[in-house]
Amino acid sequence: MKNNKPTILVVNDDGITAPGIKALIEVMQQLGNVTVVAPDSPQSGMGHAITIGKPLRLDKVNLYEGVEMYKSSGTPVDCVKLAVNKIFKGKKPNLCVSGINHGLNNSINVIYSGTMSAAVEGCIEGIPSLGFSMDDYTWDADFEACKKYIKAICQQVMQKGLPIGVLLNVNFPNNSQPIKGIKICRQANAKWAEEFDERQDPYKRNYYWLTGVFQLNDKGEDADVWALNNHYASVVPVQFDMTAHHAINTLNDWDFNV
Amino acid sequence: MKNNKPTILVVNDDGITAPGIKALIEVMQQLGNVTVVAPDSPQSGMGHAITIGKPLRLDKVNLYEGVEMYKSSGTPVDCVKLAVNKIFKGKKPNLCVSGINHGLNNSINVIYSGTMSAAVEGCIEGIPSLGFSMDDYTWDADFEACKKYIKAICQQVMQKGLPIGVLLNVNFPNNSQPIKGIKICRQANAKWAEEFDERQDPYKRNYYWLTGVFQLNDKGEDADVWALNNHYASVVPVQFDMTAHHAINTLNDWDFNV
Repeated sequence: MKNNKPTILVVNDDGITAPGIKALIEVMQQLGNVTVVAPDSPQSGMGHAITIGKPLRLDKVNLYEGVEMYKSSGTPVDCVKLAVNKIFKGKKPNLCVSGINHGLNNSINVIYSGTMSAAVEGCIEGIPSLGFSMDDYTWDADFEACKKYIKAICQQVMQKGLPIGVLLNVNFPNNSQPIKGIKICRQANAKWAEEFDERQDPYKRNYYWLTGVFQLNDKGEDADVWALNNHYASVVPVQFDMTAHHAINTLNDWDFNV
Repeated sequence: MKNNKPTILVVNDDGITAPGIKALIEVMQQLGNVTVVAPDSPQSGMGHAITIGKPLRLDKVNLYEGVEMYKSSGTPVDCVKLAVNKIFKGKKPNLCVSGINHGLNNSINVIYSGTMSAAVEGCIEGIPSLGFSMDDYTWDADFEACKKYIKAICQQVMQKGLPIGVLLNVNFPNNSQPIKGIKICRQANAKWAEEFDERQDPYKRNYYWLTGVFQLNDKGEDADVWALNNHYASVVPVQFDMTAHHAINTLNDWDFNV
């Protein structure tokens, strides 16, 4: 870390041994000094969870040449907090990247995603942050085609900066066709329709597996789902201010009569 | 359920035995037919986590007279999904309320909060949804002063509806002074500065407890922190569209040069 290269924090939610984080590390090594803090087990769907009821582990590991790496028992958001506080010790990294997630985090998925929540936490910490995901859930997904896009997007972020309180959610289509280019998008309006798979355990008690079907309610060509369906990489600027500012005036007209 | 009263889903993150949910149930029984689906153990800080790596339990319990109640092994968001799918079976309740949380969920806490994430999930499901929290972390917190405000706010929501994609985050001050009234607010700009408490286990391995200090970077009198510090109940309209729409034009000017 004695050179003048940018410092880059790499996190994910699929766990430190996932091929997706290996691909992301490979790109980041072209751009700076890489430190990895990632969960020791898969943490998909953890959203913005933090660990407050039990203690956290943080242990150094040595997986890839020239990369400082730590695994943690915590959630993706815990990993960012531990990195900033215990590893960077307040000297914030120049970039925080999360992923590459095995599976899309477009549309409403941003709110359930551990990958994106780690990037959101980086943004809350004031670090330029991005999350990357690809439309391939398999463990042997091939991330090669994403790499030049990830590099180009990160270079732009490091050159130009991001607006305060804004991070980027980048999703890539699958490898069935070449990527056509990059589209700046908004989050598509969609939701998951749950279909719980009900089973019975050997003791005759019921249990449920959460499954679901993605319901798209949005045909907009400015939405991330459209871009991905048309084989573009989608880039959505994301914010953590969840205030519905447009609704404040409406509510001020209400009479609570207490 | 044979009367014409509204159906109300009550959830929380402190667990089904928490005094806060009991207080909320008491208010809701004045407004409609109450169904409770709540975690079987505390789930604070779970954010918008969902359970996909293990199965879920959902079991009927009988704690309070005249209330249909279920406990689940899942997160607060899982509870809402289970309620909509397995209990209401697609016939959505007229209202979804979460809380009363033992402790504030104002400002940035909305994103870490299981209480608020359950209400967000209700809103994603298209149900008018609200989260309630109070500035008292203790198990024997007295929620009596909040009750008339909760009733009045829910009555307004049921009469007037909420804008599509908008829910309410309601926080109450502690009992050191009477509540002065209700303020419609935006989420204050603040963050947690982590301070990990580092310890050593009997096997000489380090572990960490997540602690932190709330850092307020916002003196605005239109923010929820100001309202609560001045002993008002704060009502923040919240949305789950996380797109930073204002940043889209800026990003369209970038040259990714791929």
